Amino acid sequence: MENVLFFLENNQLAKLKESLMEENPVDIAELLEDLTKEQSLKIFRILPKDTSAEVFSYLSSEKQQEIVENITDEEIRHIIDEMFIDDTVDFIEEMPANIVDKILQNTSPDTRQLINQFLKYPENSAGSVMTVEYVSLKSGMNIGQALNHIKKVGIDNETIDICYIIDNQRKLVGFISLKSLIFLDDILPLVDAMETNVISAITTDDQEFIASQFRKYDLTSMPVVDNEGRLVGIITIDDVVDVIDQENTEDFQKMAAMNPSDEEYLKESVFSLAKHRIIWLLVLMISATATGIIIRRYEEILQSVVILAAFIPMLMDTGGNAGSQSSTLIIRGIALGEIQLTDIGKILWKEFRVSLIVGVTLAFVNFLRIYFIDRAGLTISLVVCTSLLFTVVIAKVVGGVLPIMAKAFKLDPAIMASPLITTIVDACALVVYFGLSTHFLNLS
Amino acid sequence: MENVLFFLENNQLAKLKESLMEENPVDIAELLEDLTKEQSLKIFRILPKDTSAEVFSYLSSEKQQEIVENITDEEIRHIIDEMFIDDTVDFIEEMPANIVDKILQNTSPDTRQLINQFLKYPENSAGSVMTVEYVSLKSGMNIGQALNHIKKVGIDNETIDICYIIDNQRKLVGFISLKSLIFLDDILPLVDAMETNVISAITTDDQEFIASQFRKYDLTSMPVVDNEGRLVGIITIDDVVDVIDQENTEDFQKMAAMNPSDEEYLKESVFSLAKHRIIWLLVLMISATATGIIIRRYEEILQSVVILAAFIPMLMDTGGNAGSQSSTLIIRGIALGEIQLTDIGKILWKEFRVSLIVGVTLAFVNFLRIYFIDRAGLTISLVVCTSLLFTVVIAKVVGGVLPIMAKAFKLDPAIMASPLITTIVDACALVVYFGLSTHFLNLS
Repeated sequence: MENVLFFLENNQLAKLKESLMEENPVDIAELLEDLTKEQSLKIFRILPKDTSAEVFSYLSSEKQQEIVENITDEEIRHIIDEMFIDDTVDFIEEMPANIVDKILQNTSPDTRQLINQFLKYPENSAGSVMTVEYVSLKSGMNIGQALNHIKKVGIDNETIDICYIIDNQRKLVGFISLKSLIFLDDILPLVDAMETNVISAITTDDQEFIASQFRKYDLTSMPVVDNEGRLVGIITIDDVVDVIDQENTEDFQKMAAMNPSDEEYLKESVFSLAKHRIIWLLVLMISATATGIIIRRYEEILQSVVILAAFIPMLMDTGGNAGSQSSTLIIRGIALGEIQLTDIGKILWKEFRVSLIVGVTLAFVNFLRIYFIDRAGLTISLVVCTSLLFTVVIAKVVGGVLPIMAKAFKLDPAIMASPLITTIVDACALVVYFGLSTHFLNLS
Repeated sequence: MENVLFFLENNQLAKLKESLMEENPVDIAELLEDLTKEQSLKIFRILPKDTSAEVFSYLSSEKQQEIVENITDEEIRHIIDEMFIDDTVDFIEEMPANIVDKILQNTSPDTRQLINQFLKYPENSAGSVMTVEYVSLKSGMNIGQALNHIKKVGIDNETIDICYIIDNQRKLVGFISLKSLIFLDDILPLVDAMETNVISAITTDDQEFIASQFRKYDLTSMPVVDNEGRLVGIITIDDVVDVIDQENTEDFQKMAAMNPSDEEYLKESVFSLAKHRIIWLLVLMISATATGIIIRRYEEILQSVVILAAFIPMLMDTGGNAGSQSSTLIIRGIALGEIQLTDIGKILWKEFRVSLIVGVTLAFVNFLRIYFIDRAGLTISLVVCTSLLFTVVIAKVVGGVLPIMAKAFKLDPAIMASPLITTIVDACALVVYFGLSTHFLNLS
């Protein structure tokens, strides 16, 4: 890349072009992001048409907009012609209305119709993720005819390693891999060679479900059909990797009490970041009022044994941490399809036993610390450690069960994560703590 | 599957075999998990050799062990011959020593050597993830010779959609897609048609880095070379999907203060679950001692204005939540390669502004609640809300910066997540809260 920059600055265009040809389009796109408008346009225009379209599809939407605003209609037409429809649609969705108009005016009626159809699929559905650049074979062909057909139409298509086979009504009937095609005898009918056990999706299927099917069956591509079973597109595994990343990011965000956002952190505005965070903070802050009410009910004992306050943060933090460990494992297990609704009994029993082991250990260590180092008195030490044990048990049981109950009520298990569990466990911990304190310390 | 079960129970073996042939091997494996030993052996033995090996590779290690313990050496040999080496290695790694011996005795010397080589690669390295069943072409071939070579050796190989090209020293020099091969003229030399811009990995590269390369360059397979640049295997995208799932699960676990575990939740023993959770809980519990010390230092003011204790949980929870929102976004951004070390200044400035918006809003709402509903007095209300604002600012700045500092010190950013941030923010929040309280409330 140093060469590229050197030739660019010294305006050595022939050498610039030559050195660009050695680079991967992804890296060229990365380079353009850091250049000025004039520099990136110069590089963009020097690239061969098909490379420039590929580089374009890897650019950020800000850079895409900058380039589209500064090139001719003719150049726009070339890019749209060369790009895959799904990349074009992703690009269009991020552009302001005037740019969208400019783009649609420069596309052929066929492409325009396809783009419009794509824009109508619900967000995160199979239809919105799929590509229409695939090779379909007719069920009446033989192997030789199929190979000829592929040679004729296949060169521009995103994936032809797996070819899907349709009947006269365009209904999906089977598939065959390109490698089988080249190994088999030319005169063998396609229907005798194809596999009929096709895992397919419907355009309205959710992308998370699609990803789980790819995982389960180790697929590299999957056909998408409409409600009548007609083949309308395919989903390739590189798009599924993006889906998995996106779904995981959403789960991370929900589990940290945020409304999910598709935007990259560094590109998102301060107001948008604040907006995604504030609702849950408000809800949780107001829920925490409950803990305030509990403490105020026990003001008297707190006033007479003020050292009790010193252990509140430790109890609450440990409870929160213990609960979020459990809820995280369950939420993740549900997301990966390893845990079902019917496992609720097993989870309850498992978390109960784990919480006993963990709780007793923590309570024991804590007792040593409080009694021998803090010298807090035997009764207080025992009250604190018993409360700790109860807190850990409650936290782990609540943390283990709530996500699966959310699933049962068709809510997203990811919202039953650390922050909400912490708020619930806090209240329980305080009730136990002050209950025990009142009982055992009032006597003295 | 109902058919399968019906024919199995009525011992109608011919029909059983027929109905099994219509099912996907993944689904057959799923069925076997729920059957008794005798039933699963019956089904397993009725399957054609290549299907049974595929079904075997999808089984849980418990079921694999059960089957291996109950079949003949001859049958074991067939399974190992049919399975891909990487699946065989995954299977062997989970078996007890006596079973491993039994398996290794039943494999050819070549296979045994390959298995041993695989077992030596560090865990989570490119070497341990790669497969050795790929097609390599010699750089001296022309297109026609290449196609003939593929037809001769290719049928058993996992991936031949991309073929890698090596020179006489087995050094990787380029690649070509199967679709290019079938479109090109037979007499064209391979070196004139191949792409030389190969993205490759070294056997010792970490799998997380491999996954990021697949993401960045939209790859479906990647060649793996040894230290001398010789081709030794390939990594296919379906294995990368498993890597991505595994890395995400690890991040989720670390971010919830657990030592990561590869085991599925429902299959992991209670003691193992407890072991993975207890260390961090202990560390965090003992760190929470700091908050106890702070509270004890301010016992006096707490005793005279005991209502102050009622707001501690709300302050701590809100601080913890605000901090974990920020740290989660930064940790995820680092994991996806969107955030670099050099972005630390940008993050600091962004989090500061977000925290002002969020903090002022929360403080305002809280003031309304405390002053008008709780009727807590103007000075106390102001002290609580000012502390809240400071807490949110500190939490978001600490949450935003710590993960990137962990990265700078070559630690895993994921450990700088919610639990650790909460502990740090708690202490800061209490110092501010009691500091302000002493200053403004002692006067009255």
